[in-house]
Amino acid sequence: MKRIFFITGNKNKFREAKSIIPELEQLDIDLPEIQSIDAKEIIRSKLLEALKHKKAEFIVEDTSLYFDCLNGLPGPLIKWFMKTIGNEGLYKIAETFGNYNAEAKTIIGYFKDNIYFFEGSIKGKIVAPSSGNGFGWDPIFKPEGSTKTFAEMTQEEKNSISMRRIALNKLKEFLDADRKSYKH
Amino acid sequence: MKRIFFITGNKNKFREAKSIIPELEQLDIDLPEIQSIDAKEIIRSKLLEALKHKKAEFIVEDTSLYFDCLNGLPGPLIKWFMKTIGNEGLYKIAETFGNYNAEAKTIIGYFKDNIYFFEGSIKGKIVAPSSGNGFGWDPIFKPEGSTKTFAEMTQEEKNSISMRRIALNKLKEFLDADRKSYKH
Repeated sequence: MKRIFFITGNKNKFREAKSIIPELEQLDIDLPEIQSIDAKEIIRSKLLEALKHKKAEFIVEDTSLYFDCLNGLPGPLIKWFMKTIGNEGLYKIAETFGNYNAEAKTIIGYFKDNIYFFEGSIKGKIVAPSSGNGFGWDPIFKPEGSTKTFAEMTQEEKNSISMRRIALNKLKEFLDADRKSYKH
Repeated sequence: MKRIFFITGNKNKFREAKSIIPELEQLDIDLPEIQSIDAKEIIRSKLLEALKHKKAEFIVEDTSLYFDCLNGLPGPLIKWFMKTIGNEGLYKIAETFGNYNAEAKTIIGYFKDNIYFFEGSIKGKIVAPSSGNGFGWDPIFKPEGSTKTFAEMTQEEKNSISMRRIALNKLKEFLDADRKSYKH
């Protein structure tokens, strides 16, 4: 079976991905992240960086939160918003703008001979930080049609509607089709 | 006379700097910018990158705008805020938060045998975008004690109070002291 290295330091992300794509192996290396609001550009740069270290197949993912009222910010800059103003500050922005619409989006970049991208996104509302177990911005994101924020959901509930799951399923389909085309 | 390479693509910045520090030469190369809200970290990374290309003395500068209401954002992420929400959006943030205080700060990193940092900053208010000649966020920044935004000033007026000028003067003092210490 071929190996695909999922470059991430996050064990939970890795576990979720491996449950869908068994050929994944975790590769916990720290790659420089270029400054951009274009997640694909960031992912592309990381994949090319990884290739300098080893010739292999890799995936890199980016999951970010995009506010309508900020024309797509914070996007991949979300970690800096978290560090400076946190969930309270993010909520305050949506509140003061009077526009709570946001999109949670995962983009996966897969390098084989080329770079292929797979996206999953869900729409939702920014709400006042909830309690719960979530990490990052989970406490302020409530997916459309749900009565709970990500932080208030069990891991199973969250996985069942997650943008990451959607992107992973697309990658899986691609890999399955790819595998078949080799057999013929 | 020794040469110090100022890494910038901006001719105006270079001209201003050279008028203060004659030994500067412009080096217009594109260095990857890591993602951070810490300008020093970004500058350090660029200087180390430059050193891979050539052994020499370099300076790299970062001039950013820091909002009180965003706990220091956008800072070095200012370019992405400009691209997404622009001056109108930046002003709207200050307005909705009801806090117009901001700081314009230049940090210069100078590599010789070590990296030395020099800072200049001025406080001011975020105002509704003015007309004028300024570029970037010049139309929304009004320095404390001034009746004009940066965009409404002549280049001379702007230079006379600029955060960049303050940082450059500190670098110049350092270089002068350094030069004397060699002569003894």
